[in-house]
Amino acid sequence: MKHQGYNRLSMSSQKTQRINQLGEFGLIDLLNKMIVEQRSAVNNAPAHGFRLLVDTGDDTAAWETVKGTELFTTDTVVEGIHFTRSTTPWADLGWKSLASNISDIAAMGGLPTYALITLGLPPETEVEDIKELYRGMLEISNAYGVSLVGGDMVRSPVVFITVALTGYHPAKPMLRTTGKAGDKIGVTGPLGGSGGGLRLMLHKEPTELAISQESTEYLKRCHRRPQPAVDEGRILANAGIATAMDVSDGLADDLSKLCRASGLSARLYSEQIPLHTLLKEAFPDQCLELALYGGEDYILLFMAESELMERVMPQLEQGSVVGELFSGEPGRVVIIDGSGKEIEAGRGGWDHFA
Amino acid sequence: MKHQGYNRLSMSSQKTQRINQLGEFGLIDLLNKMIVEQRSAVNNAPAHGFRLLVDTGDDTAAWETVKGTELFTTDTVVEGIHFTRSTTPWADLGWKSLASNISDIAAMGGLPTYALITLGLPPETEVEDIKELYRGMLEISNAYGVSLVGGDMVRSPVVFITVALTGYHPAKPMLRTTGKAGDKIGVTGPLGGSGGGLRLMLHKEPTELAISQESTEYLKRCHRRPQPAVDEGRILANAGIATAMDVSDGLADDLSKLCRASGLSARLYSEQIPLHTLLKEAFPDQCLELALYGGEDYILLFMAESELMERVMPQLEQGSVVGELFSGEPGRVVIIDGSGKEIEAGRGGWDHFA
Repeated sequence: MKHQGYNRLSMSSQKTQRINQLGEFGLIDLLNKMIVEQRSAVNNAPAHGFRLLVDTGDDTAAWETVKGTELFTTDTVVEGIHFTRSTTPWADLGWKSLASNISDIAAMGGLPTYALITLGLPPETEVEDIKELYRGMLEISNAYGVSLVGGDMVRSPVVFITVALTGYHPAKPMLRTTGKAGDKIGVTGPLGGSGGGLRLMLHKEPTELAISQESTEYLKRCHRRPQPAVDEGRILANAGIATAMDVSDGLADDLSKLCRASGLSARLYSEQIPLHTLLKEAFPDQCLELALYGGEDYILLFMAESELMERVMPQLEQGSVVGELFSGEPGRVVIIDGSGKEIEAGRGGWDHFA
Repeated sequence: MKHQGYNRLSMSSQKTQRINQLGEFGLIDLLNKMIVEQRSAVNNAPAHGFRLLVDTGDDTAAWETVKGTELFTTDTVVEGIHFTRSTTPWADLGWKSLASNISDIAAMGGLPTYALITLGLPPETEVEDIKELYRGMLEISNAYGVSLVGGDMVRSPVVFITVALTGYHPAKPMLRTTGKAGDKIGVTGPLGGSGGGLRLMLHKEPTELAISQESTEYLKRCHRRPQPAVDEGRILANAGIATAMDVSDGLADDLSKLCRASGLSARLYSEQIPLHTLLKEAFPDQCLELALYGGEDYILLFMAESELMERVMPQLEQGSVVGELFSGEPGRVVIIDGSGKEIEAGRGGWDHFA
């Protein structure tokens, strides 16, 4: 992967590498390496008296201030890639575009504070739709104590929404890199509901599924109005938990990312993964798959030694222990089913470019 | 503009209003109003002990911290709208996408600190191009002491780049709303260079323009590598200047915005507007128009009473007084030419949706 003496003309030959060949993780690794190598530390922000705590690669960036830790995160959705207007009404889109960012702050154990909203919009967008979008953003902002303080609006052939969000942690944030072999793995709530809701809405003839009204409403609500686990994040941080992340791409995929960051493997016990009764009722054969590989549940995934895990569990309304970390290939996740059989977790996650 | 009791079905009738009819400023005003009205102050970020100083509507958002003021801004460029690959190489695009954000921090008198980068990319994007983009970002980051601390990469049918940037001001930021009738208007450097560079590059047969090599290089550099006025912003803030903004859409348009925010009119003396010799040489008949209506110069525009203005000017390398504020229709800008004739400034700025 040469990048010295790079000659623009020679690139038009067969040597051209495209980002869908490299994949999202390959590209992120490459750029993170460039950033860390090429920035001249002496002159950068730490010189103003801030100490960078968390760099590229965790849920949010973080730096120390006089009062605690400042958190900083961003997330984007693009029409046709992350959402379609047919399954996501504008108000829900507003809610969800902030929810994913609030969840990143929750994963560090922080409180979300200020948000900037960037909208890319085609000129023929209806004003009422944008007002609906903001209604959803204001609902979740008010529910979670976030102030919308500005942003940018630009013309674009495709709708996209980027949220940048700051947060605050009175002490040290929880990280992905601090997992230890032998740590138990916990989750703060049931999984797969959002994926179930999406599957319902994508189904052409939902009545054919013969799913109860109650399940339908629960699952759609999981998908449309996910509840970031800010309170749970504070409980974990206060209890002394050091390692956490949020589940946005499915338990198996996000656990694999955390394992990669901590240099470890993980074992998940499929029968211990919490599944809501209404999800099991609606998708009896697919509920586990939805929990492992569905996205946008926004519960927290965290690790601690047994003793601490036992101490924190009673403080959580819906906490469960689902597995443990062990020394092994970084990023490997093994699922143990009811009969004790080991199944290698597939990469069910969402690679944006592959 | 009803928005209570809104009925989705009735919207498909002739009453539909589209954002290109409302225009960018109309849409921004409408959303700002919604945000301010509908947020429930008790529960929002100020409850965590931060005091919001500047809300939607200035160069950056700002809130008080124990140590000073935290600044927060974002800016986006979209391919085909804000740039084309034919006139902007990837490294320059990286430089410029950060420059516009750094300039917003400079306009408040702050120092830029941490940046998150969001890239929307088609899957067939070449890896080398993204590395070039990051090279440009790292160059300007290192020049201005900014730390790139993460971001997001998403698939998109069109390239877009969103930068979210934090900044820091040891005391109170300069604002757009504090101008007073009688204040003199100053600028920190020559104008129109970036617009001249763009005009050069868009010209099919640049040799036909018969512009010297020196002018060509100067103007292209102005367009491709604009230098945000962070040092000048610090000088102004330290001298006690309270009112400033950056010139990103042309002097006339940005001055009009500041006048709207301060509820005043402005007079500009065309012969006092600083124009670089190489711009005048290249575009003798168009240089003033480029200064008034060209964009991306990223110098600062500021206001102060005569005495303070006289005190600060010697501290600036290239400062000029170009006019004054007066009581009148908010946002009105009048240009006085060499013969004393008054010309009403046209809205030469860039309305993203109109």
